[in-house]
Formats: sequence, C-alpha cells, structure tokens
Amino acid sequence: MKAEIISIGSELTSGQNLDTNGQWLSRALAELGIIVGYHTTVSDQRDDHIGVLRTAINRAQLIIMTGGLGPTQDDLTREVIAHVAGVPLVEDPASLVHIQELFRSRNREMPERNRVQAFHPEGADVVRNARGTAPGIWMRIGQSVVVALPGVPSEMISMFHEEVRPRLIAAGLGGQNLFVQRKINTFGTGESAIEEQLLDLTRRDHVPEVGITVSDAVISLRILARGKDQSEVENQIAPVERKIRERLGSLVYGFEHEELQDVVMHLLMNRGQTVATAESLTAGLVSHRLAMIPGASAHLKGGVVAYMNEIKIRELGIPTEVIDKHSAVSAEVAQLMAENVRQRFQSDWGVATTGYAGPSGGGDGTPPGTVYVAVASACGTRVQQYTWGGTRMEIQSRTAKLALNLLRLELLAVNPNTAQ
Amino acid sequence: MKAEIISIGSELTSGQNLDTNGQWLSRALAELGIIVGYHTTVSDQRDDHIGVLRTAINRAQLIIMTGGLGPTQDDLTREVIAHVAGVPLVEDPASLVHIQELFRSRNREMPERNRVQAFHPEGADVVRNARGTAPGIWMRIGQSVVVALPGVPSEMISMFHEEVRPRLIAAGLGGQNLFVQRKINTFGTGESAIEEQLLDLTRRDHVPEVGITVSDAVISLRILARGKDQSEVENQIAPVERKIRERLGSLVYGFEHEELQDVVMHLLMNRGQTVATAESLTAGLVSHRLAMIPGASAHLKGGVVAYMNEIKIRELGIPTEVIDKHSAVSAEVAQLMAENVRQRFQSDWGVATTGYAGPSGGGDGTPPGTVYVAVASACGTRVQQYTWGGTRMEIQSRTAKLALNLLRLELLAVNPNTAQ
Repeated sequence: MKAEIISIGSELTSGQNLDTNGQWLSRALAELGIIVGYHTTVSDQRDDHIGVLRTAINRAQLIIMTGGLGPTQDDLTREVIAHVAGVPLVEDPASLVHIQELFRSRNREMPERNRVQAFHPEGADVVRNARGTAPGIWMRIGQSVVVALPGVPSEMISMFHEEVRPRLIAAGLGGQNLFVQRKINTFGTGESAIEEQLLDLTRRDHVPEVGITVSDAVISLRILARGKDQSEVENQIAPVERKIRERLGSLVYGFEHEELQDVVMHLLMNRGQTVATAESLTAGLVSHRLAMIPGASAHLKGGVVAYMNEIKIRELGIPTEVIDKHSAVSAEVAQLMAENVRQRFQSDWGVATTGYAGPSGGGDGTPPGTVYVAVASACGTRVQQYTWGGTRMEIQSRTAKLALNLLRLELLAVNPNTAQ
Repeated sequence: MKAEIISIGSELTSGQNLDTNGQWLSRALAELGIIVGYHTTVSDQRDDHIGVLRTAINRAQLIIMTGGLGPTQDDLTREVIAHVAGVPLVEDPASLVHIQELFRSRNREMPERNRVQAFHPEGADVVRNARGTAPGIWMRIGQSVVVALPGVPSEMISMFHEEVRPRLIAAGLGGQNLFVQRKINTFGTGESAIEEQLLDLTRRDHVPEVGITVSDAVISLRILARGKDQSEVENQIAPVERKIRERLGSLVYGFEHEELQDVVMHLLMNRGQTVATAESLTAGLVSHRLAMIPGASAHLKGGVVAYMNEIKIRELGIPTEVIDKHSAVSAEVAQLMAENVRQRFQSDWGVATTGYAGPSGGGDGTPPGTVYVAVASACGTRVQQYTWGGTRMEIQSRTAKLALNLLRLELLAVNPNTAQ
C-alpha cells in the first residue's frame, strides 16, 4: 500500500510558491500509518494532469490531489478525474445549495461562474467543505482511491480531518503500524544549548528518535516512535518526554502546535485575569497574537501602540526627562510603559516592548536588534534585555515572543491571588 | 520542450523537510526560458526511482535529479541512471583523485565507502563538484538529457551555475528563449468577479498566458511571456498589462511581491503624512503591518488597541449610548474610532477596525466575519462593511487588509494638500 500526493498549479512548478500542502498531507497520512511514496507537482495543463493522474493510478493505491477545484478556467481537477474515470460530469444539487447559501450568508450574489463548482464526476462521492465553495471528490478508479481537495490550506486541512481521515480509516486504508510524533516546544535559549543537555537522546541510533528543529526562535524537540498500538508507542515516548521536561524545566512552554500566546491566554483564562499592552518596536504584534486565541476578548483589554516618542509621552505618561536621559530604548522606559499601561487600562498585567528593529540602530551606536521587554503586575515589574540578529521582521516577531514568554514566566512565578 | 525536476529522499515524501531545491531549480530554469512541467519527489526505494525516471523520460526532454549521490547505501541515483540507460557503472579516475584530495585537504583519510562516488554510468559526462565529494552526472538517454546533482543546496546551486547552466545553453536547451513573469496584485473583489472581466485573457490558448492565483483575499494575475529577447517579451506583456489595469482600475494595488502595507506606507512617505490606528477586531495587526516597512517610524504615530468596550469608551471617547444603540460592531462605532484616534494622536489619517472574528458572532444574530473598517481624514470619513468567511485568523488578517486598502483608496482619492 503506497500513497501519492499530487499538487496542482503553475505557481508551484514555476517556483513561485512552495508546496506546503504536500508536506502537511504527508505528515497527516504518516500518522495513519500510510506511507507516501511520491509527491508530484504539475503545471496547469489539462493533458499533463491526465498523464499524471494515470501514472499515479498505476503505482499508488491512494491518490490525494490538491488544487484545481476553483471556479476559473484553469481549474481542471473535476474534468480531469471524470476524463480518466471515463464518466461525465454531473451537477450535485446539494453542493449547489451549499455554494449559494455560502454566498447568501456573506450578503453577495453567486456569480454564474461558481456554478461549475457544484459539478463532480458521475459516481463520485462529494467531500463536504464547510468553509468554502469548492466541494472535494472521493472516487474509486480501478484499484485506487482518488481524493481531490481544494488548494486553500485551511479548507484542505479541515476537510482532511473532518471528512477524509474517517473515510480512510473506514475503508481500511490506514496501516497496521502506528507512527506517532510528540513535539515539545521550548523558548529562551539556543539550539546547541538545548542539545548539550540532551546529547544522549539525540544520538542517531537512539530509540525512539529525537530530532531538534528551530523556527523563529522556538526550539522544538520531536520524539518519533513506531509501534503496533498506542500503548507500545506511549511506552517508548513517555520516559523520553519525562527526561526532556526534567532537564529543560521552564524552557518548555508547550506541546505540538501550541504557541506562546496559547499558553499565556490559557493561564489568564484559568485565573480570570486581564492584560494590556504598550508596544513600540512590535507595534501591535503582541496584542494581535493574544487576540488570535478564541475567547481573548474577556482577557485582553487592549493596548497602546506607542511607535513615536510623542505618543509614549502623551498616551503613556513617560516623562520626557526619562527618554532624554536613558533614550526610548532602555530598561527604564520599558518598565514605565508596562506599569503605566497596566494602571491606565486597569488590567492585572501590563506588557511592554521597545527596541531597534533595524535596519538602523540607536544614534548612540546601539546596534539594531537591541530590545527591552517588561511585564508589570501588582507584585512588581520584570524587565529583560536581549540583542537579536536577523531581519526587521524577524526582530519584531521574536521580540513579541520574548515579551509573551516573560509574561508566561511571571504568570507561573506569581501567586494567582496576589497579582491583582 | 518541457523539464521535470526529480527530488529524491524519504525525508521529503514523509513531510519532514520541504523540497526547496525543486523551487530553486524551477526559478533558475525559468530564467533560461525552460518551462518546468513537473516536480516529482520520491522516497528512497530503488524500484520507485527506476519507475519515476522512466516516466520522466517519456514526458520531459530535460530531467534534473537532486539527491542520492552520497556514499551511503540509500544513495541510488548513479545505479538507477545506469540501469535505465542500460549501461554498467564505471570508475572515473579523475573523480577518484578529486575525492581523495578533498579528504586530504581536510586532513582526513578517505573511507573506502566514498570510492563509490567516483563511479558513473558508462558514456555519461561528469559534472564537477568543487565543494563536495559527490560529482554530478550529465547523460543523454533516448530523446532526453538527464542531469543528476547532489541534494546539498550549496553544492547543487554552485554546480548549476558553474557547470549545468553553460552546458544547457551550449546544448541549445536554454538561452534562446527568455521567460518572464509579471505579477499584478489586486484587492477588493472575488476571484470569479475578476475573471469575468478578463475572460478573453485567461483563455487557455491566450498568448501570453494569464493565470489567476488567490492568497489570503489578494487576487493576483500572472502574465507569462516567452520570447527571444527582452523587447519581444515586453511587447507581449505590455498590452495585456495595460488591458488588465484599465479594466480593473483601482482594484490593482501593486506588482510582484508588493503588499498593501508597502503601497500605503510609500504613499504616506511621498506626502510626508502620518497615520494612527484604532483597532478592535484586528487588535494591532494593522499597525504591526505598517511597522514592517523600514522608515515607518516617521509616519506611523501609533494607535489604540481597543479590544474591550470599556477601552473604546475610556481611551477613544466612544459614547456609551452609541455602543448601546448600534453595538460595538457598527458603522457608527468604526467611524468614531477612526475620527477620535486621528484627533487624539494628531495624525493626518485615522484607521479603525471592528467586527466579530469568530467563532461566535453578535448576540443579535450578526454572523461571525461581519466587520467594519473606517478611514478618517480632514476631508471626512469613509466606512466600509464586509462579511468574511474563514477562520478567526483569516478574518482578522483579511480585515487588516480591508482597512489598509480603504486607506490606500482614500490616499489616492484625496488631494495630497487637503488631507492634513
């Protein structure tokens, strides 16, 4: 049993975009024990699609296609599957109703062109798409199952979870061997400093395998285990996970896809506390990340983006003398920003960022990448200085993480009942 | 003439790594006027490699393989090419000397295993690798040219530039034809509405080819032209580009990699004007995006993230009665947010966002995705309502774009000297 993933689009073969859908699907299939033997990416040409699908049917038992289900003339997947299966395209009334309702719910009229998305190859099953206008296709052709999903990642991912995964299991296409990855996310030190504490676990021949990946200052450990069933896999993973957590302590902030803002928001939710932000360098990125979490509106009061000094002075009450003496990029200003926004917004916590995002640094020779973050509560204020390398956007993004991580550490350190 | 790129490695088909070599090679070939029709990625299995290479020879005239040239047992590319070509592997004395010298220069003895890297299919040319131990392969099989390069990106890239590119031109496989893409970015309507105005241009047989791609509510048109030289290509692109710009008017906001914040910030820079933001739903994302642009600190004063209603009332002076009467998600509140932040921050422009990001909507049955954005200047205030589909993060991101786009349209509409 082997699977093939086919990604459709000239923007992929031309090198304009990277095929991240293929990577995501490979991992999702691996979790089901399904081995992907081939990825194929093909440009927007009808004959090439037909050739690629025929080749796939000859060498793979499961084929998952992404892209080409939109309403425009270069969206050919419906037509190509029908052609290869030797059946006509037929209209699915339920899909048409779904598409029309989607437009109605957005107060817009359905363009006639979108009607084509309600068509699918005769004999195929419709894969429901709750989030968009393009239904997917599930069809058996010869000895193979062909599944077509939209190229929009959020639609593709939710359709895979909600529709495709259960069908694959029901069809007995999942493998006997379970393949499980556990991801442990850390923030606050470098890759080699992490590995120095885990050298016995990251050896190539260690079972289960432990890998290290870095993404925008977050260092993640991946434990990869294989086994017949959940308990066999869990018996491999649990002792390794315990060792990692013991050795790394509070550097570990979360698991799997958790980001710092998830952890911080859940700590605030558990305590029924609120936060306000005062951002210079990050200019709203800290508050934006907190607002990503559903339910944030009961815990994020808001904040002040104090990008120019006049706003730090007028809106956050930073005395001109403090800026003149220490500069706006200083521990003193970061501390006052956090304390004053907390007071002004009447929140339990105040978080502040200031620094030089680059390309230029301070007039006094302070290099770009120099940043200060501060967290204020009823128990006092903590300030942290750091100097980042990287581009302007990397410095802004990593400083937002530094601020969220300091808030996390303070939330963990301070007694829940005294921070108010 | 069509090319195929084959990337070898189970770390790619398993989803562990992304195939960035394929993307790089696509772009490098496009610059030579060579169109890539297919990318194929295959796991480390000998029979699968053979099948993939045979398929490629049947459908492409140029095949570039990366990976599988190392010294270990899962490095199969040499053997697979020889098998498909029907010739034996033979040792190349010059390659052996090169490998031995490389080890000597690093003060190490050559492991016996590395000797295998000096072998190549009989009749093939050696592609020199100045940076590593794996020479590449250049071989004609049937009507196709097969090129094999190592998977290490730095070696692959320098070998392509120094060895492969000149040979492709000398072999007449590239060089005669220039291949140029022009990307035109639009915001403000849907994919099918855009295509309805361009149906004659997006026809499959139109020369030059015009494709449509969507990414987070930005619809881009790609014009792909081929020609002998720059002026021939430009003569194809210019009239199509003019038609697109004429028909789409102010929906077109930029070109190539330009984002809305680039365009808005450059308009502000040209006019020496400033902006301040009042964000509810987007919670800082509008100001953060503006702050991404180097030099933003002279034009972005800052803003208020007014996530809770109490902050809208206290910090932005929205009367409680207005919120009670119209709700916080209303044209009235958006307008007052934009006007009041402009006044309070003494900026030329005020931008505001409010809405329901989901998963829940308004208590009155207003669906999630309902948003209002507003832009205020000395010439008055414009408010726009929209209802998005999508996830919470998509709604936040797209609303930030909606606000930046409204600011762009107002900047273009208002006389530069009166907005102050």
